Amino acid sequence: MVDRISRLRRRMRELKLSAFLISSLPHLRYLFGFSGSNGLGLITEEYQWLITDRRYREQVKHEVHNAEVHIVLQDLFEPIKKQNIFARGMRVGFEAMHLNYREFSRLQKAFPNVQLAATENIIEKLTISRLPDEVEKTRRACDIARQVWDAILPMIRPGMTELDLSAEISYHGKKLGSERDAFEPIVASGWRSALPHGIASRKSLEPGELVVIDYGCVYEGFCSDVTRTVMIGQPSEAQRRMYEAVKEANRRAIAVAKANMPGADLDRVARDYLRKQGYDKEFGHSLGHGLGLDVHSLPRISPVSKDRIPENSVITIEPGVYLPEVGGVRIEDDVLVQKDSAEVLTDIDRELVIIE
Amino acid sequence: MVDRISRLRRRMRELKLSAFLISSLPHLRYLFGFSGSNGLGLITEEYQWLITDRRYREQVKHEVHNAEVHIVLQDLFEPIKKQNIFARGMRVGFEAMHLNYREFSRLQKAFPNVQLAATENIIEKLTISRLPDEVEKTRRACDIARQVWDAILPMIRPGMTELDLSAEISYHGKKLGSERDAFEPIVASGWRSALPHGIASRKSLEPGELVVIDYGCVYEGFCSDVTRTVMIGQPSEAQRRMYEAVKEANRRAIAVAKANMPGADLDRVARDYLRKQGYDKEFGHSLGHGLGLDVHSLPRISPVSKDRIPENSVITIEPGVYLPEVGGVRIEDDVLVQKDSAEVLTDIDRELVIIE
Repeated sequence: MVDRISRLRRRMRELKLSAFLISSLPHLRYLFGFSGSNGLGLITEEYQWLITDRRYREQVKHEVHNAEVHIVLQDLFEPIKKQNIFARGMRVGFEAMHLNYREFSRLQKAFPNVQLAATENIIEKLTISRLPDEVEKTRRACDIARQVWDAILPMIRPGMTELDLSAEISYHGKKLGSERDAFEPIVASGWRSALPHGIASRKSLEPGELVVIDYGCVYEGFCSDVTRTVMIGQPSEAQRRMYEAVKEANRRAIAVAKANMPGADLDRVARDYLRKQGYDKEFGHSLGHGLGLDVHSLPRISPVSKDRIPENSVITIEPGVYLPEVGGVRIEDDVLVQKDSAEVLTDIDRELVIIE
Repeated sequence: MVDRISRLRRRMRELKLSAFLISSLPHLRYLFGFSGSNGLGLITEEYQWLITDRRYREQVKHEVHNAEVHIVLQDLFEPIKKQNIFARGMRVGFEAMHLNYREFSRLQKAFPNVQLAATENIIEKLTISRLPDEVEKTRRACDIARQVWDAILPMIRPGMTELDLSAEISYHGKKLGSERDAFEPIVASGWRSALPHGIASRKSLEPGELVVIDYGCVYEGFCSDVTRTVMIGQPSEAQRRMYEAVKEANRRAIAVAKANMPGADLDRVARDYLRKQGYDKEFGHSLGHGLGLDVHSLPRISPVSKDRIPENSVITIEPGVYLPEVGGVRIEDDVLVQKDSAEVLTDIDRELVIIE
């Protein structure tokens, strides 16, 4: 993990930051192994600190081996003030996406004489191209998701509620080694399947309905994120057509994904295909996103993305079509982007499963 | 729900805010019934808007009935700019604890001529005293937590892992009607039980170990939060003594809790008792916290709290003692604070359960 901090220091020098404050919890986990719910990291050329509160006094002894730990009663800035770490005029970076305005204004008041520099995506960009051990962790997270699918598929039957199925997903995830759900599982059936982000409800699965099932697992901090869509009873012509179109859009995007491709170009491959099939506005979200310590990370894979897809990054490919009267279909895979191709990490069959 | 917005408008007038922006997702759920993962609310004397992205186009039709809905491609501020809602110099409140610095600076750039007012706890304070239907929802969330306990207690046995038990908690929560875990369940056994916030790990439960089990359920947005501690095998003298001290601290605090009491006074009742029993530094966290749409809310129940506990608020009472060599004990209940007493909503036995 010291290597991770060295990479961060190198980046800080490029950005002329004398100190960097880390407020994102997944980033504290990544840099220091700390899994608590409250903390602040400080990196300078000289120091590497983890500051947290008394609840984590024991936990840090087990988790944190590469930082000086400071335990506070309440104010995470206190040890920095006390030891006068910030010289006047010093340029101190902070994570603008992971510090709320209230904490920012406390920071300003605590250190009125330093130059606070709002930064974005510093650590996100350090993790975007996986190191070999990080590839392994991502593979595990994806493999657990595959095993979850194998466990839940035989359980799906008409009459069960979306929440019942969501309960099985979370349960089998943990039993199979996931630390937690990467996000609250989406189980959306019938008219609800046309809601791209329909969290599981008390609605039951009924014949004639498509069911969109979207969930993720976490292994040592790294996330997976997968979606499959099943059919309860025989599909209508419109449902079958939608399904096949989305499956083909997924296949086409996976087939062309490779390193250095602009995210917008990859999005276009799926979007153009779906448009030709008559689904234009019906694909109302991005094709995918980077997957890392957070389930939504860099690079962006959308029509307006300006990101290129780096080698060894992990992205989702998740075309979807949603028609209020017919239902929705989404098929999402996680791929490891390589020099000339993309390796699918979520090895789950994509043929339409019909459950009678 | 219109009533909720009226109360907010009243509060806005008191604070001389002409407009208020809501960025907290639980608050959007509370005000508008919207359960999506991206959105912005706008309240003025004249308007009540919910702004979200295309993924929620269908969902809002089912969920949101008391606001004008605006769907954007990306920029949630766009409809406010387009329709020129903010007059020059207008005082616009925002939620300082629920807007990150990056979004704040986008807000500043989007509306350079308005007076942005950082607010804290506006909606938290509106919800602190429950309306009758909100009391009912909290009761349901607490009752589901009790049923979860009844379901999991017979399953606990030596050799099972913390994650196995955590999987059962999440599973039974959803099966019994919880929308989701209120937070990732804490299952901490043996030396890990001395970590007040030890998320479940791959460690197995072994004879001679205390196991701290802390979880919560959610019913229509309202959270419960309960902790019980069990013993695997016969307790040592030290473990038994710790357990009884914490149980008594919990009992004493519940017995005296009532409306208008300062949170610091309630904390002191438990803390003084534990200190007299020889556990001083070993109770290294607050006695409790308000419980609402967020699992940690107002009022604060801690040694440094300046809050009074309002009538009809719901708070946790959760004394704990943690000794690295012996383990940890925490017993947490949720209570509805009334004029002269507190009603326990988490009706779960507090005697030490010994599992052989």
